[in-house]
Amino acid sequence: MPSISTMNKDELRSCLTQLREEHAGFAAKGLALNMARGKPGADQLDLSMPLLSAVADGDGCRAEDGTDCRNYGVLDGLPEAKRLMAAMLDDAPENVVVGGNSSLSLMYECVARCWNFGTLGSQPWCKLDEVKWLCPVPGYDRHFGVTEAFGIRMVPVPMTADGPDMNEVERLVANDASVKGIWCVPKYANPNGATYSDETVRHLAAMPCAAEDFRIFWDNAYCVHHLYDDAAEQDQVLDIGAACREAGNPHRYFKFASTSKVTLPGAGVAALAASPENVAEIKKRMGVGTIGHDKINQLRHVRFLKDADGIAAHMAKHAAILRPKFELVLRKLDEGLSNVEGCSWSRPRGGYFILLNAPEGTARRIVELAKEAGVTMTGAGATWPYKQDPHDSDIRIAPTLPPLAELDAAMDVFLCCVKIACAEKLLAQ
Amino acid sequence: MPSISTMNKDELRSCLTQLREEHAGFAAKGLALNMARGKPGADQLDLSMPLLSAVADGDGCRAEDGTDCRNYGVLDGLPEAKRLMAAMLDDAPENVVVGGNSSLSLMYECVARCWNFGTLGSQPWCKLDEVKWLCPVPGYDRHFGVTEAFGIRMVPVPMTADGPDMNEVERLVANDASVKGIWCVPKYANPNGATYSDETVRHLAAMPCAAEDFRIFWDNAYCVHHLYDDAAEQDQVLDIGAACREAGNPHRYFKFASTSKVTLPGAGVAALAASPENVAEIKKRMGVGTIGHDKINQLRHVRFLKDADGIAAHMAKHAAILRPKFELVLRKLDEGLSNVEGCSWSRPRGGYFILLNAPEGTARRIVELAKEAGVTMTGAGATWPYKQDPHDSDIRIAPTLPPLAELDAAMDVFLCCVKIACAEKLLAQ
Repeated sequence: MPSISTMNKDELRSCLTQLREEHAGFAAKGLALNMARGKPGADQLDLSMPLLSAVADGDGCRAEDGTDCRNYGVLDGLPEAKRLMAAMLDDAPENVVVGGNSSLSLMYECVARCWNFGTLGSQPWCKLDEVKWLCPVPGYDRHFGVTEAFGIRMVPVPMTADGPDMNEVERLVANDASVKGIWCVPKYANPNGATYSDETVRHLAAMPCAAEDFRIFWDNAYCVHHLYDDAAEQDQVLDIGAACREAGNPHRYFKFASTSKVTLPGAGVAALAASPENVAEIKKRMGVGTIGHDKINQLRHVRFLKDADGIAAHMAKHAAILRPKFELVLRKLDEGLSNVEGCSWSRPRGGYFILLNAPEGTARRIVELAKEAGVTMTGAGATWPYKQDPHDSDIRIAPTLPPLAELDAAMDVFLCCVKIACAEKLLAQ
Repeated sequence: MPSISTMNKDELRSCLTQLREEHAGFAAKGLALNMARGKPGADQLDLSMPLLSAVADGDGCRAEDGTDCRNYGVLDGLPEAKRLMAAMLDDAPENVVVGGNSSLSLMYECVARCWNFGTLGSQPWCKLDEVKWLCPVPGYDRHFGVTEAFGIRMVPVPMTADGPDMNEVERLVANDASVKGIWCVPKYANPNGATYSDETVRHLAAMPCAAEDFRIFWDNAYCVHHLYDDAAEQDQVLDIGAACREAGNPHRYFKFASTSKVTLPGAGVAALAASPENVAEIKKRMGVGTIGHDKINQLRHVRFLKDADGIAAHMAKHAAILRPKFELVLRKLDEGLSNVEGCSWSRPRGGYFILLNAPEGTARRIVELAKEAGVTMTGAGATWPYKQDPHDSDIRIAPTLPPLAELDAAMDVFLCCVKIACAEKLLAQ
């Protein structure tokens, strides 16, 4: 098919008729395909089945320090679980607090603690007239949901290939003490796949902030989630903890990670790392609401994953499943949209998403058309605070859940929808 | 030994010398015994070992509705997990929200949600000048820790054999809209073992409250934790939910329970039940902070415990282990303190604790003496808000963790300490 972008109106009308016929054909098939959420596929979950039998009897329930993991206690995690999660968090085990099955919960609770009690002596954020938060966009809708729930005013900051636009970030934090935090997914970011450059990390750590209790929420959700085994094809990100210490702002960060997309999303282990002072405060306050998290599950994970090498070997198995899916989506985008002006997309080397930038004003229409033809996409706008994408342009593609054949079929539908929306837009101009 | 209470001063002095020699003898043994916390013993934990293998492979990870429990999703619990926990909560499955491994967390989060967001349209409690809370005393220290953390002013209300002193409760809630809640352990209460009478439950449900958003936090921690198998020897408590509905206050309660002392305290399942409106609100707000709790562990519990009958059969095994421990403690108290004026103790038919009321002003001294002789007790005062027992009288005995022989030895030490403190008090008068 010749390029939509170079057609005259008659050609466009004829092309649109053809595309709509194609779309009607898809719709008639009664498809139920899903590229909406970053869920692993069943074959990925199968990789972790030995986890379920890793702790099977009373003798096996002892931690290395003799703790009977079946009973109450151990607020911040078993020593060996801290060591395992420290490997993911790129930190020392003593700076790690192991939580339950959800890093989102750990983040929510960190915001809630600062909100209700302040942090390291600062005023509780709930006492302030206004609290603002920097949200690199496009970003993760559940991050935005947390800050929105507390009535925190979210300020979008553009993402670049190197992380958030640091000129904008530095400007916003420099003189406004109501700006208390920033959401960061520093590696293979959700959804654009970018990894923060060393310079970005150092800027975040060193920039002057009007708020002394400004906190970087460092959600390293995809820290070990490479698509390629060769180290040269893997992104690396500087440790924000080390950068903050070097810059003389040692308490500025909270780091988060989980095994949700390493073992089982429903039954993984989450953890955070922070400065010793922050960890001490978190433990003191966390201890009010729980006696301890699931230590048996911590033990399962230690026995199954073992250490950094064990995690890497396991993640290579995930990559072998995911790589063909990402490559399929990219090949289809290349084939289908290369000559459609205004369309561009990310080429991530890890993580769970590919971002399509569609021509301004078409994203909602594309997602709506896909829905009509039986393909569920992440809602247009979801990658922006308050679900408001001012350009109506960003669409997050999640290729991981559907089997390859379904993904192939879903992408055919999706590309047809993109082209319809683009043609409609050109015709309306 | 003749009764301390009838001795003259010379006899007391001589008796005290003898008791102190006995105490020194204990101290010299270098004992390390613990009657401090309500933890199950290792033999109780052994009862639940089949739990660990109840879900072992991918096929076994399907819930009854086909959900793959390994993946993300299902915020409020699997249907079969709701049914199981509904049996413990004495409610309908649709009113149940299944949480993580800790009912304390569910309670903390319920307070936190009301604090930050209000409930069913009420003003957030954090916006009020003062929030007060009724605390039946003696009570559970971790409950008091939650309300203390939020700066809620705790008001002690005396416990009776039928539950809290309802005249006092009714008086306190009637005209003061800042009184927002009450902590209740309605069955085999921690620590006095009392079970609320039907009249108490109906009063709590029906009493006029100045605060429309007054909430009863109904921590039914020991709902199935009987010491005796014969139904005639088991306490029963009226359902607060039904009572509240009948009284026309359908949203007044949050019910909590967990399998912590049914299966494994470190790896159990917690749940809450509430009115449909409360449940809808809780789910909406809970969904901001988590995608879902550990469904694999929910499935393990359903497969292992099955239903109300399965739970009862399992709890009978716990009772067989715990009964001799409670009976030993009671026999020793009867033998050692019957003729010591001012000492009285509870005779619970379930739960995890026996309460000793020591003569006013002796509890701290007793716990201190026990510590010196190698026996750790719950801190004196811990059963009161702010750890302030105005009578310095309540001591919580937790007989469950030590093996029987250790418990026997620990009680000998403890009784010696009680008598020393009583003799010291009489001599000082």
